[in-house]
Amino acid sequence: MTKKRQLKLGVMLHGAGGHMASWRHPNATIDASVNFKFYKQLLEKAEAAKLDLAFVADGLYIHEKSLPHFLNRFEPLTILSALAAVSSKIGLVGTLSTSYSEPFTVARQFASLDILSDGRAGWNAVTSPLEGSALNYGKGEHPAHGERYLIATEFLEVTKGLWDSWEDDAFIRNRETGVFFEPEKMHRLHHKGKYFSVDGPLNISRSKQGQPVIFQAGSSEPGKDLAAREADAVFTAHESIEQAVEFYRDVKARAMANGRSPDEILIFPGISPIIGKTDEEAYQKYLEIANLISIDDALNYLERYFDHFDFRQYSLDEPFPELGDIGKNSFQSTTDRIKEMAKQEHLTLREVALRVTSPKTSFIGTPEKIADLIQTWFEAGAADGFMLSGPVLPDGLTDFVEHVLPILQKRGLFRTEYESDTLRGNLGLKIPRNRYERDEVINNA
Amino acid sequence: MTKKRQLKLGVMLHGAGGHMASWRHPNATIDASVNFKFYKQLLEKAEAAKLDLAFVADGLYIHEKSLPHFLNRFEPLTILSALAAVSSKIGLVGTLSTSYSEPFTVARQFASLDILSDGRAGWNAVTSPLEGSALNYGKGEHPAHGERYLIATEFLEVTKGLWDSWEDDAFIRNRETGVFFEPEKMHRLHHKGKYFSVDGPLNISRSKQGQPVIFQAGSSEPGKDLAAREADAVFTAHESIEQAVEFYRDVKARAMANGRSPDEILIFPGISPIIGKTDEEAYQKYLEIANLISIDDALNYLERYFDHFDFRQYSLDEPFPELGDIGKNSFQSTTDRIKEMAKQEHLTLREVALRVTSPKTSFIGTPEKIADLIQTWFEAGAADGFMLSGPVLPDGLTDFVEHVLPILQKRGLFRTEYESDTLRGNLGLKIPRNRYERDEVINNA
Ligand SMILES: Cc1cc2nc3c(=O)[nH]c(=O)nc-3n(C[C@H](O)[C@H](O)[C@H](O)COP(=O)(O)O)c2cc1C
Ligand SMILES: Cc1cc2nc3c(=O)[nH]c(=O)nc-3n(C[C@H](O)[C@H](O)[C@H](O)COP(=O)(O)O)c2cc1C
Repeated sequence: MTKKRQLKLGVMLHGAGGHMASWRHPNATIDASVNFKFYKQLLEKAEAAKLDLAFVADGLYIHEKSLPHFLNRFEPLTILSALAAVSSKIGLVGTLSTSYSEPFTVARQFASLDILSDGRAGWNAVTSPLEGSALNYGKGEHPAHGERYLIATEFLEVTKGLWDSWEDDAFIRNRETGVFFEPEKMHRLHHKGKYFSVDGPLNISRSKQGQPVIFQAGSSEPGKDLAAREADAVFTAHESIEQAVEFYRDVKARAMANGRSPDEILIFPGISPIIGKTDEEAYQKYLEIANLISIDDALNYLERYFDHFDFRQYSLDEPFPELGDIGKNSFQSTTDRIKEMAKQEHLTLREVALRVTSPKTSFIGTPEKIADLIQTWFEAGAADGFMLSGPVLPDGLTDFVEHVLPILQKRGLFRTEYESDTLRGNLGLKIPRNRYERDEVINNA
Repeated sequence: MTKKRQLKLGVMLHGAGGHMASWRHPNATIDASVNFKFYKQLLEKAEAAKLDLAFVADGLYIHEKSLPHFLNRFEPLTILSALAAVSSKIGLVGTLSTSYSEPFTVARQFASLDILSDGRAGWNAVTSPLEGSALNYGKGEHPAHGERYLIATEFLEVTKGLWDSWEDDAFIRNRETGVFFEPEKMHRLHHKGKYFSVDGPLNISRSKQGQPVIFQAGSSEPGKDLAAREADAVFTAHESIEQAVEFYRDVKARAMANGRSPDEILIFPGISPIIGKTDEEAYQKYLEIANLISIDDALNYLERYFDHFDFRQYSLDEPFPELGDIGKNSFQSTTDRIKEMAKQEHLTLREVALRVTSPKTSFIGTPEKIADLIQTWFEAGAADGFMLSGPVLPDGLTDFVEHVLPILQKRGLFRTEYESDTLRGNLGLKIPRNRYERDEVINNA
């Protein structure tokens, strides 16, 4: 009996919830974004439910109009390392920018997380959308969108090279002879590129899963190309199943064009299910959340995508303004989508702002309805799995785990036990072979 | 009744032990430097013994002759974050270089560790001695010794500035009004200096202890000056009590010259006690460890201090060679001491190599003898506390905790219960006031 293709599920840990006003909800933990106990309980719940991974987003610039849970939150590598110590199966994926970091440090920190979690680390490599990031890193200018992806490509090559510094059997540690490692199994990268020069070797070995899992989250053309070349998984956002199917086909085709199997790159759309005993109850929950936002908050949120462009100069009830290139060097794929949506549907500024800040509408309803939607997307080739973002946490996760997951399990779409104790193992991804390993070694194995 | 001045104690977590051949010892855990369970057990032992802190050293460059436990080890921030999740009182101090990092990232990661440990983080700010570090960070040259300290000084100023981005009562989180924070309690640093330009604010608030504790570990003139200005504690190494007293007086005097109280900066010499039921048994233990090293290992070790200078061109049994400036841009204070010692005592190259690699000799003997030595140093003004480095772990820590600590406790020199659950609290250091806090706030408190 061959098992049905299995759905993969991640959960976002982002304080009180994924929605900008989550913290105002009566069930929210108000200081969640800096509350370790809260993170720990959420992770334990996700692990008990056998989810594949927990995911932590990040950003390198804030100002007084940033989303509340961005203003004061844990840094991803530190919080995930802490969570590694209180879990044993679930994957731990953190966001880190290739535009404002050093590959030697990033490679080390993720490798260290990977070893201390015993093979459960993942890295969401992002290029940092926010222009202001440059101001926190002594850079005159935020690199342009295209250049950020060139930097990211080289960054990932260097990092993966550093991760292979030591072959898996390099450390023989022979007490009698005093030989700690075999020198010919230590490798120096000697990378000299346009953006980085890194000698190596890294001062840490590979983990049980070989290398951390690489996520990518940019959806622009160069973003998809980077994913197709270097990523094991893509985190993405779509309004409709048609868009999602199109994106899925596109990324898999690009991966194949790079000589990869489509199974080597998993697509995770983000969804934010709102679940009720009836569709009506779910819709009431939706309204309760949507109504926590004032139009002022909504404008702040919208402005952030457009690099804090001042929308208040326009009338709220006139058509959404013509913006030209504004937003292009920031969240490019998102701002393109917002502009397109406004044009297609003839929306006003107010409508756009409220639409953008509302919880994503398509996954609202009874547990059966949510399970049906998930199954439909999954079987239509829109997703290999989903990244769950509870609009309010822990409720959003609890509702999903208690009511939707059992249905998916009954349908044979989701595991009831972990298959593995590494992230690659659970995601069904191969352990990447060390680039320096000689063929004899493989043949002997 | 006023309590006696209390001794502070830290323990170094460095894999199999502080000695270069520790891993060969029959009681060593051979893969300790990448074994999370081992670190966890060691930390639990240290916390049960009420030690003030655990300390993780670091380095940014290795090559095939580096010390075995440097080749493959956890990165400090990740391992300490993991340890934070399995402890509740002990301080967690990690080493991180100011020569190859960005203040915004460093400030965030330590602040995040500080919040998830609920006020137990410390940062050992080092300037990175090893020239090779530059090769891993795309820098043409390792900055000169003096310049590294200029960079470090500005780096610490920026980091501390970022840590004060949010006043302690900034986040009011009022669900009814939707006001998450008071804008006038958020502060941008707007730093523009010679080495760094950082706008801020940091996207994380202060912890219960205000700011992480700053350690400094350089003992050269600019190193001591930096400590005197910016550090809460100094980690240092001395061969004799006379040297240690001199250093202690010197640093405290420099701190006072900066308008600080001598109590605001604590001096921690590193010691590596070897404990036996009798002095003879201790000495046998010492020999057992010292004999694990071959002269070849010893030369490797010595060479590392001198930037992998090739000592093999000299005869082992001739006087230690004249080295001029070699080593000056690396571990300056250490290489100066080695040169001086060789000259004063007319040592050969072999003698110097074996002396440098031997476990520090002065703290060998019965528990009473070790306790006496500690008390003598403490009362003579050589130390406010000690950083314990077990030559072989966990034995080195276990022996100390079981046999020496009870004596120190009986003499009223060391706590039997933690006074506080923050690192500053246990070290008796004040919570640094937020630089932006207005006086009325203080007066109302
Ligand atoms: C679903 C999704 C999640 C993202 N998460 C992050 C994040 O956590 N941190 C970040 O800096 N950027 C994040 N990004 C931004 C992208 O990494 C990228 O910088 C930005 O979208 C511009 O690139 P693009 O035009 O290729 O999408 C995310 C983007 C998407 C679509
Ligand atoms: C006791 C002690 C511990 C040190 N620990 C570290 C360390 O963990 N990592 C590091 O890069 N440098 C470490 N150093 C090196 C110093 O930070 C400094 O870079 C070096 O000693 C040169 O500066 P100096 O001449 O002021 O001592 C240590 C130095 C001493 C004395």
